[in-house]
Amino acid sequence: MTHMNIPTYNDMLAAHERIEPHIRRTPIRRSEYLDELTGAELFFKCENFQEPGAFKIRGACNAVFGLDEAQAAKGVATHSSGNHASCLSYAARLRGIPCNVVMPRTAPQAKKDTVRRYGGRITECAPSTSAREEAFARVQAETGGDFVHPYNDPRVIAGQGTCAREMMEQTGGLDIALAPIGGGGMISGTCLTLATLAPECRVIAAEPEQADDAYRSFRAGRLIADDAPKTIADGLLVPLKELTWHFVSTHVSEIYTASEREIIDAMKLAWKHLRIVLEPSSAVPLACILKHPEAFRGKRVGIVVTGGNVDLDRLPWMQGAKGVT
Amino acid sequence: MTHMNIPTYNDMLAAHERIEPHIRRTPIRRSEYLDELTGAELFFKCENFQEPGAFKIRGACNAVFGLDEAQAAKGVATHSSGNHASCLSYAARLRGIPCNVVMPRTAPQAKKDTVRRYGGRITECAPSTSAREEAFARVQAETGGDFVHPYNDPRVIAGQGTCAREMMEQTGGLDIALAPIGGGGMISGTCLTLATLAPECRVIAAEPEQADDAYRSFRAGRLIADDAPKTIADGLLVPLKELTWHFVSTHVSEIYTASEREIIDAMKLAWKHLRIVLEPSSAVPLACILKHPEAFRGKRVGIVVTGGNVDLDRLPWMQGAKGVT
Repeated sequence: MTHMNIPTYNDMLAAHERIEPHIRRTPIRRSEYLDELTGAELFFKCENFQEPGAFKIRGACNAVFGLDEAQAAKGVATHSSGNHASCLSYAARLRGIPCNVVMPRTAPQAKKDTVRRYGGRITECAPSTSAREEAFARVQAETGGDFVHPYNDPRVIAGQGTCAREMMEQTGGLDIALAPIGGGGMISGTCLTLATLAPECRVIAAEPEQADDAYRSFRAGRLIADDAPKTIADGLLVPLKELTWHFVSTHVSEIYTASEREIIDAMKLAWKHLRIVLEPSSAVPLACILKHPEAFRGKRVGIVVTGGNVDLDRLPWMQGAKGVT
Repeated sequence: MTHMNIPTYNDMLAAHERIEPHIRRTPIRRSEYLDELTGAELFFKCENFQEPGAFKIRGACNAVFGLDEAQAAKGVATHSSGNHASCLSYAARLRGIPCNVVMPRTAPQAKKDTVRRYGGRITECAPSTSAREEAFARVQAETGGDFVHPYNDPRVIAGQGTCAREMMEQTGGLDIALAPIGGGGMISGTCLTLATLAPECRVIAAEPEQADDAYRSFRAGRLIADDAPKTIADGLLVPLKELTWHFVSTHVSEIYTASEREIIDAMKLAWKHLRIVLEPSSAVPLACILKHPEAFRGKRVGIVVTGGNVDLDRLPWMQGAKGVT
């Protein structure tokens, strides 16, 4: 583990100062109805209200605005077909530097459109790991762009940690901080911040049953890869990596999982009572609260609403929508 | 006009003090994308985030908490199948007094469920004006409940006016305040407040083409009734009455209208870029901005997002949804 560059609390503080001019201090949403239903006090931190619709703008801005001038001129690069790609493109445009994104040509058109709208330059590749790695190596060699990994990067984790800091300030204190877990960037940032700022606050992760590598790793005490994950919570398909596993294994108190049906029901419930548009990944925490109410009853629970980018023509409760099992 | 009890600016201030403990100071949402698209600075005041999901909690709370003890013991009564009924029930429950609601038996089950969830007592009637008036007279005679009209009531208008006051404080000033118009309660409250607080700010109303009694009345300079209005913006079906016409005729600068298709497109655009759940009525202002961009370009525009109660199983852009023409 000595080779890992583990971000510190001071890195998070520096990140917050660096990114604050570029991000929104998103509001907290509450619902008396959901509080009554769960017996808990729920504080929903609306990262879906960031301009590109996801918390990943925090880590992306921290990486982009932390570059020195020489590197900035060459820009940044990543491979992602999700919120990280659009958030990194958005952040790069804010600084006026190039952003190259390698994306499988099978990625949804809407995701490609969003990246391009923010000025990202897309290189398409075949939908395989080897093709992606090859395309990415070529793009990086050509551009010299700095690689910003979606989550296994200390700058990114320090950036994501700023969300928990705001959440503690805005709520005046919490018993539990709850966030979805995919690659583990948000959970790691939350652990990083709360370990110092509020060590008495438990950090709990929420994961789809059908992409439960974090749950199984947590139980086993060692990093276990996913075997063909498949979930409607498409932001959570990616696996933990060594940096995020470090935070999960040392600071997370518990990981709960929810089924596809439970995730969809929670998503609809949140839309109805919070009246916010959140994506399936962001509904996993509420699904886990409803499934394990005893763990949350009587507690003050902060929940990171990680993103709000959904295809409104293919909502999961619509007939014919994909992904429901 | 001398018989009308027209609310004053001081009534609005008193209302704000009265209701502040019971309502939310809702946030302002912004979108760089929508600003670029329209060339305006748009400030969306999220009244859909009130607990019962609509601005009508303001007027309802002002009426309910303004009752003396003797009247409060007898409660309140209204006829409505929309947000006013649920908001009045919610406000009455907050004070612990009865709320009777006369509703056509054909009203959607979801609306009845919401009123009952907030403790409202429903009396069903046949879906005709005469049946409603008869049922309401009977309920009032039996209960002695104070009649709180959905909009043609000075207490209600003074309550709705508190929204414009918050909006001016939160935005630091606006060139235009824009809200949908149905019965005219929100627009009247906005006129009431801004005539004193910000007389330089123009008040503009947005109305469905297919329920355009306010537009036609405004053009004619006299109150003209609707002729069989029919719109997906179901909160805007009701006509202006004498009190709201007073404010519209004396203080509104302009009324724009939008087609059903324009309303639906604007609703979807708002969901996508603001990531909030707003009801069709609340999308009419954005539809009018997109239709008349020259009137808004370069301006600071405050928009009241009036409500967020929609049937998520019957979104207007879904196949088979009703109301699209």
